[in-house]
Amino acid sequence: MHTIEIASPYIIFLGDETRIPYVKTGQGILDWHPEICKAQYRLDTDTYDLGLTDMNIQQAVQAGIKTLIIGTAQVAGSIPSNWMPVLLEAAHAGLDIVAGLHTLLKTIPELVNASEDGNARLIDVRIPPTDIPVGNGKKRTGKRLLTVGTDCALGKKYSSLQLTKDMLACGMNVDFRASGQTGIMISGEGIPIDCVVGDFISGAAEVLSPDNDHDHWDIIEGQGGIFHPGYAAVTHGLLLGSQPDAFVVCHEANRCSISSWPDFSIPSIGEVIKLTIEIGKLTNSNIQCVGICVNSSTLKSNERSNYLKQLSESYQLPCVDPLIDGTKAIVKHIQSINFQ
Amino acid sequence: MHTIEIASPYIIFLGDETRIPYVKTGQGILDWHPEICKAQYRLDTDTYDLGLTDMNIQQAVQAGIKTLIIGTAQVAGSIPSNWMPVLLEAAHAGLDIVAGLHTLLKTIPELVNASEDGNARLIDVRIPPTDIPVGNGKKRTGKRLLTVGTDCALGKKYSSLQLTKDMLACGMNVDFRASGQTGIMISGEGIPIDCVVGDFISGAAEVLSPDNDHDHWDIIEGQGGIFHPGYAAVTHGLLLGSQPDAFVVCHEANRCSISSWPDFSIPSIGEVIKLTIEIGKLTNSNIQCVGICVNSSTLKSNERSNYLKQLSESYQLPCVDPLIDGTKAIVKHIQSINFQ
Repeated sequence: MHTIEIASPYIIFLGDETRIPYVKTGQGILDWHPEICKAQYRLDTDTYDLGLTDMNIQQAVQAGIKTLIIGTAQVAGSIPSNWMPVLLEAAHAGLDIVAGLHTLLKTIPELVNASEDGNARLIDVRIPPTDIPVGNGKKRTGKRLLTVGTDCALGKKYSSLQLTKDMLACGMNVDFRASGQTGIMISGEGIPIDCVVGDFISGAAEVLSPDNDHDHWDIIEGQGGIFHPGYAAVTHGLLLGSQPDAFVVCHEANRCSISSWPDFSIPSIGEVIKLTIEIGKLTNSNIQCVGICVNSSTLKSNERSNYLKQLSESYQLPCVDPLIDGTKAIVKHIQSINFQ
Repeated sequence: MHTIEIASPYIIFLGDETRIPYVKTGQGILDWHPEICKAQYRLDTDTYDLGLTDMNIQQAVQAGIKTLIIGTAQVAGSIPSNWMPVLLEAAHAGLDIVAGLHTLLKTIPELVNASEDGNARLIDVRIPPTDIPVGNGKKRTGKRLLTVGTDCALGKKYSSLQLTKDMLACGMNVDFRASGQTGIMISGEGIPIDCVVGDFISGAAEVLSPDNDHDHWDIIEGQGGIFHPGYAAVTHGLLLGSQPDAFVVCHEANRCSISSWPDFSIPSIGEVIKLTIEIGKLTNSNIQCVGICVNSSTLKSNERSNYLKQLSESYQLPCVDPLIDGTKAIVKHIQSINFQ
């Protein structure tokens, strides 16, 4: 098994977290895949409520739930002591436990013992699978779309998920492919590509979107940015291994410098398109940009449509804010292209 | 400590290896740094002879030797049983042991015990140091030259070492910076950059060539190839983190396809120069190509000079076979440039 695979349905563990920004992993899973979220586990009555049925571990097991997924962001370095009784009970009862925390589940001896007793898996989504091969660059069957960005953290995951949803709604044969921790928790499968050793990054990306039907699309969650001083190596390897037929550039209006790297300006969308094609054509000579997704939250509502229209005219591409408009305009454009 | 550091002088362990290609690590250390090679350890009388003084462990310790370095390539998967008594004796006696083998020294319990008894270090040069930061992209003082290539395994390490040697001979202030296992053994310091996790590759490259004197040159051993379907991610991160002022392209005459990737043609030297500049200018806007190193071993001697001359005229750059000509022509060109 070369990708992380999470068994569903889930019970989402929220600890005693009351603040919305810190439950965004749990909220994200529910937003995108309500059908696999059967229950929530809250330690207190004022813990944030996702609106799911509250269950204890025994009820969860009886309901056929397979996995307890930690849906909160970690604040301190270690797992809070008041979480441990629940995690131990879950592991003993045979529920897999999934986390993307800095403290790895597998480094907690009592949890390892409990999971062995219960024949449960401890899945740290920061740890890539073993035995990832070196990239071979061979052409695979099926179609692929990769999201890229002018920077990190401006909507590549969201855009990929929305594109998948909108393509499904159009009756297309499509899968979302997660390359990051939250994406893996949402989709139940994937590889944390930024945690893979350098020589195996493009190989990991090849494993992530294997051979498929001729008319099938993999929508691959992008990482980093090809002009990013810290993370471009990952972006480059993901691009080569994904061998995308199509890519969508994600951008945030009014962001001027690389987030946390204030000395580096945000590249233009045109520069990102040019370098992405220049690198990507090594493994797919027909690579092309099919749209632009803009996070327009910094614009006033009366500026937004003009901004998107101007971008669209400049690049002759559909340009949307996926949160507001969805991505149907891009899907329509994809359907109009005769991909080889 | 962010880089691997090996204490000298060395005793080079050759096992019972009789074949020249399998002792090239030991031979390489001796060729480039004879001053740190005080002795050799051979298991049999017909073991390959580097021409160094044969010593046993007791003699090595008395001679002030600090490190036993395994100078052979591994044939089988594990360490041969007839090596173990020597390695255990060395570790007990306080000699650090250095290896680049598939089987890690640190996974052999009796060797770990012996090294703890002897207060010796077990250094696996495949394992990068911990605590490597994410690349910050900040400009560092001093000058840097990176070797890049049209493929892997065509002389980037050799060219880097020869450039270092020739620059030293011209009285320049220069250090070789090893990014691969053999280079680390030869120079006694470095980071195996292809073993670093994706998000930290450019950070590792930054650590490898820290701030230095204004007139100091780091000659950084390149890895992979920017058009390589398997390894380009590492090349990209190393390029960004090295922020080179200058680079040299390494090429092998008559190599037509990427080694072990027969479906991928070797890019032209011009394509490599163009993409290296396009990517590298993110962290050094003055990046420029200063020469070409050719492995011309596949050419007849009467073709060689014409081949190099034509390349030199095409690219308006000095072009040498470093094994035959050395790299003084490139060093002279570097000295003629007014680097900012």
